Formats: sequence, C-alpha cells, structure tokens
Amino acid sequence: MAGTERIYGWHAVRAVLERGADRVVAVYIGEQREDPRAKAVLDLASRVGQPVKRVPVAQLTQWFGEVAHQGVCAEVRPLDPWGEDQLLAALGAAQSASQSALQGGPPIVLVLDGVQDPHNLGACLRTADACGALAVVVPRDRASQLNATVRKVAAGAAETTPVVAVTNLARSLALMKDAGLWVIGADAAGPKLAQDTDLTGPVALVMGAEGSGLRQLTRQTCDLLVRLPQSGAVESLNVSVAAGMLLYEATRQRVGAG
Amino acid sequence: MAGTERIYGWHAVRAVLERGADRVVAVYIGEQREDPRAKAVLDLASRVGQPVKRVPVAQLTQWFGEVAHQGVCAEVRPLDPWGEDQLLAALGAAQSASQSALQGGPPIVLVLDGVQDPHNLGACLRTADACGALAVVVPRDRASQLNATVRKVAAGAAETTPVVAVTNLARSLALMKDAGLWVIGADAAGPKLAQDTDLTGPVALVMGAEGSGLRQLTRQTCDLLVRLPQSGAVESLNVSVAAGMLLYEATRQRVGAG
Repeated sequence: MAGTERIYGWHAVRAVLERGADRVVAVYIGEQREDPRAKAVLDLASRVGQPVKRVPVAQLTQWFGEVAHQGVCAEVRPLDPWGEDQLLAALGAAQSASQSALQGGPPIVLVLDGVQDPHNLGACLRTADACGALAVVVPRDRASQLNATVRKVAAGAAETTPVVAVTNLARSLALMKDAGLWVIGADAAGPKLAQDTDLTGPVALVMGAEGSGLRQLTRQTCDLLVRLPQSGAVESLNVSVAAGMLLYEATRQRVGAG
Repeated sequence: MAGTERIYGWHAVRAVLERGADRVVAVYIGEQREDPRAKAVLDLASRVGQPVKRVPVAQLTQWFGEVAHQGVCAEVRPLDPWGEDQLLAALGAAQSASQSALQGGPPIVLVLDGVQDPHNLGACLRTADACGALAVVVPRDRASQLNATVRKVAAGAAETTPVVAVTNLARSLALMKDAGLWVIGADAAGPKLAQDTDLTGPVALVMGAEGSGLRQLTRQTCDLLVRLPQSGAVESLNVSVAAGMLLYEATRQRVGAG
C-alpha cells in the first residue's frame, strides 16, 4: 500500500500494536509459527481488532532479504514527527502515569545534539526504542532528519519511537527541565561517572555529534555532565553505542531500584 | 605506501603507538595542534623513535572526508589476524600482567558467534577496542571475516585490536576456559542479569549472531548466560550496541571494584 512501511521482528510488531494500533494496516505471521511469541502477537492483534494474515516465510524473506525478520511483520502508516508541544504533552502524561505506577518508570528522552549521519540517527533510534525511551529529540538545522535511510536503519523503531525536530535545542532543553526532567549530557570531561549519577528519575540524556561532542550552549544548558568509564569513549565510540551504554546505565539503575 | 592503512583520531593513534609501534610507518598531526592531546602523541611518538610530520588540516580532511579525524593520523602496516596460539599466549601474558597490577585489569575477550554483516563486525571491533578488549574471536565459517569494509567501519580499531578467526568455536571457548576465563554468553533467556553477575575477573563475553542468537553448542559451552535489562534486547538491539552494553557493564564493575 502506498505510503506505508513494513516493519519486522517480534519486538517492533508488538510495540506498534501496543502503542500505535490505529496506524497498523496489516499484520503478517509465517505459516509455521505457533510459539509463545507468535501467540502473544496473535492475542494482541485480536485485542486491538487487527486480523493477522498467515504467509509463507519465503514471502517475508522476499520482502526483507537477509535480515532477521523472525517470521513476523506489520504494515503501518508512518509515525509523523512530533512537535515540541506533543513532546511536552507526552512528558506530562508519562510523569503522571509513572507516579501512578501504570508505566515502566519515569520517562527517558534521548537528545542528539547535531548527529549528521543518517545511519547513526537510525541506529540511535533503534537503541532508544529498545531501551523504552519516550522520544528522540534532534535539532532541525545541521543534523540528520528522519528520512528513508534513517527509517531503514532503525528497523521499525521509527514507527514506534517519535522523532522531535526542534528549532532551538537549548530552549527545548529548558522546556524539558521545566517539565521536570534532569538534563544530563555525555561528555568525556564530565566530572562524574554515569554510574555514580542517579538516573532513576525523569531524564533527558544528551549525546554530542560524532567527533565534536556537545556544543557549547548545549553543554551549558545541561544540569550535569557525566562520562563513561571507557577509554576515550565519546571520541572513539560510535554515537549509537555510546547512547546505548548511557541508556543501559539508566535502565540498570531502574531495575536495581525497582 | 602500498599495503598500509591510515588510521585517525587521538585514541586510535595513541593505541597503535602504545601497542604496535613497530607497525607504524608515519604519524601526521595538523599544523595548528598544540593542545595536551597533541603533546601526548608527540611524546609517545618520540619515545618509540617515530618522527611526527606536521600537515595542513585540509590534507587530513582530503584523506578522510567528513569523518572526525581530530587532526591526527598514523600510517600503519595492517595488524595480521591472530591464530588461536597467539590468543592463548596473549591471555597468559595478560593474566600475569594483571596479577602484577601492570595492566588495566584482567583480560576481556569479545566472542562473536557468527556475525555475518561486515558492518556489524567492524562496529563490534571498534567498540571492543574502545573498551580495552584483548581480542575479538570469530568463527572461520559462516561469519564475516576481517576485510576492507570491516577495517573501514572499525575506524582504526582493526589495527589495534586483533581478530582471531577460529575453526571450531566451541573448542576455542574450552581452551579459553582452560586459560582461566569465565565464558559468559548474552542471551535474552539468561537466568541472571549481567549487572548481577561478577564480570571483574578474566572473561570471554559471547554475543550471538544478528537475530538468531547463540548457537546451541555455543550456548552449552558457556559457563553462564546473562541477559540485559532492555526489553527484548538481544532481538531488537544491533549486536554492536548489545556488545557495547555488556562491555560497559564489565568496565563499570571494574571501575567500581578498582
């Protein structure tokens, strides 16, 4: 169907059925799949009134090539980029929900300060999605935006985790602070290790651009700068791997605290 | 020079001067660079008897394009792949060194059980290098090997962190056990979280292939299977990001313990 995207994998399909069922056009599961993960998707699809089509696995492989589609895919209308207003509304909702213990903990927003390579944006989006981040915030200028390459690398995450393109990143960070988030920047020269910093509350985790790191104004806007213990991490790690480590650290602390 | 590779960035150049000075053919630093990182490389190069050439930054940008070369590069003869014997010898040496507190702690080996995408192998190599892993072990069959694409994605890491291609991965894991390593596999169904597992000793961290995870025999050979707290991590994270999280966890524990 024109204008739709096919996303694959149990995690991605489950996520879009849970969070964006109204955008799902079709769900496909391989003919042979009767395992618990297939049952979970069948149950979820039936609960949201979405019929599931059984297809030969060869059909999925034809659609996706050599990637690990895991025998499941969904055809979805793309998730539109969010505006700042939607982000703030979602933050408010997430905070109330986390206070009433309905959700998976206080919100995490991943902020990318000028990541230019679409592969890196796609990889960050995929990692943010797997770590349960509420949204990924990017500046509108001098930074990669959501495009076909990003969607492809994100492997479905672009259809479940919204990208928020903002005009003035420092102002957006200030608004996130007003909404109750701690704004924490990753910086090789940060005074504290991430592991010695409380990341269990509502946080925005800010990653600098490839090589150049956080911009001066962004750095000044952060409540706190933290570093990773890896040798020269920020300079020598890919930004999606560094973001993954910081998101891991936040999740680790929440599991430990929860 | 024919057969050489140019690697860039302070971390990569420092690493190759420290660990493979005999393979360095030339070191280049941008004309304007006089900061502490430049001084550190100048000192190191002089200590190993390697003259440093000053070049216009534009020359570096012409060589490397838009990547963050940071104003420094080295021309090196490629690091040859290691054999199993070299790995075991290096493990023995690293264990003695770590016991005498000369080195940065007990060795970590990253094992990739059948990663097929050269971009993923390159990204894992880069992450392993930044995390101070001793080597990356891959099976010789049905897995990506060290090639030009891998070297490029690894951004210099292939010249500092050796890749060991082995014929029989389960046997190599057994030999690593004999050499005193704990063999720990990443598995979504692992009974313990990585954060609740002691990773401060000598360890081999084993990641499964994209999508399919650890092979049956590999799984059985592991001393322990651990999971990451990320939702569906192993299925939904890129293998280099998942490897980064596990390497981060090991480093985090060592910093905490050290």
